[in-house]
Amino acid sequence: MTSSPKATPRPGGRSARVQAAVHRATNELLALHGRAELTVPLIAARAGVTPSTIYRRWGDLAELLADVAVERLRPEGVPADTGSVAGDLQAWMEQYLDEMSSEVGLAMMMDVLAAQGRAAAPAGQAPPACRCVEFTTAQVEAIVARGRARGEAVPEVELVMDTVVAPIVYRALFGPAFLTPERVTALLAACFKGARKAKAATPG
Amino acid sequence: MTSSPKATPRPGGRSARVQAAVHRATNELLALHGRAELTVPLIAARAGVTPSTIYRRWGDLAELLADVAVERLRPEGVPADTGSVAGDLQAWMEQYLDEMSSEVGLAMMMDVLAAQGRAAAPAGQAPPACRCVEFTTAQVEAIVARGRARGEAVPEVELVMDTVVAPIVYRALFGPAFLTPERVTALLAACFKGARKAKAATPG
Repeated sequence: MTSSPKATPRPGGRSARVQAAVHRATNELLALHGRAELTVPLIAARAGVTPSTIYRRWGDLAELLADVAVERLRPEGVPADTGSVAGDLQAWMEQYLDEMSSEVGLAMMMDVLAAQGRAAAPAGQAPPACRCVEFTTAQVEAIVARGRARGEAVPEVELVMDTVVAPIVYRALFGPAFLTPERVTALLAACFKGARKAKAATPG
Repeated sequence: MTSSPKATPRPGGRSARVQAAVHRATNELLALHGRAELTVPLIAARAGVTPSTIYRRWGDLAELLADVAVERLRPEGVPADTGSVAGDLQAWMEQYLDEMSSEVGLAMMMDVLAAQGRAAAPAGQAPPACRCVEFTTAQVEAIVARGRARGEAVPEVELVMDTVVAPIVYRALFGPAFLTPERVTALLAACFKGARKAKAATPG
């Protein structure tokens, strides 16, 4: 499970240092040799840990790859501030589109899904939330909160997720063509229809 | 590749009979034992063909499972006619949502993606169109064409794919919760904004 707490230790401790070393080794080996050549003993050797450390913490190679993929999907900071919520969303989505349409982005999504699928909930129940969705939602929320603080009319976060983020990912996974930046603009514009202006920039 | 022509023989021939037997055997064994127990020799024995027949035609088990999944995603007929394009889309999407939110639906998507991922286009190029997307698009097109023939205002097919089908699949794969039928209604309603009425029911 990519949402398993065992894979997200508190930063700073020995556990976090082990995780950082294993992630770094995995990323380096992925860049050097590609995924097909990767094995747990190879990663362990490069990270300076025993294979059993990896098996104990991650379960197997697929879980480790999923964890590394999710970490690579973790945003590096607050979204760029272009001065307006529309500009911020457009800039952020274009970058997201670029990442998800790249070979690396697609491979990361597949790694995440491979582990996600195995953690699937029983029939009829909602799937466990993927950390990558939480990251994306948090970025959109940050942009919308900033717009609201400026007193701008802002779209619903859920609407942006369903009608802009979802088609970027769906098309990247299933085709027939990547979403274009122009299409992102049009889909974002539709999210602003009916958007309400915040009354005042109240903190909290 | 799930879009490979080798997996879609003309119906009626020996090739089609072999495919039907192998698909039937795969579906029966999936129902009896689940995916983890499945092997090519087991399927071959039940289908009355040699394992090499399966390897020659499908490559490996993952490709065969993807092909079987795509066939199960193939719609069984024309979409139900409720009398209006809005009603037809709502009914069709609710059924699609049900299927994609089921354990079987999720497993099918993962099988399709596993093969799709391996057939990924070079960096920066669009992914190959998945046959499952073609099926879905064709069903939406059929509903929209029927509405146009009735002289109704109809939404753009691409908009329905991007803002209704995509979030159904995205949420089923990544969470955090399945789309609800009420949400489908709202997203469909948004597709009708700006929809233009067909001038006349002209054939072609």
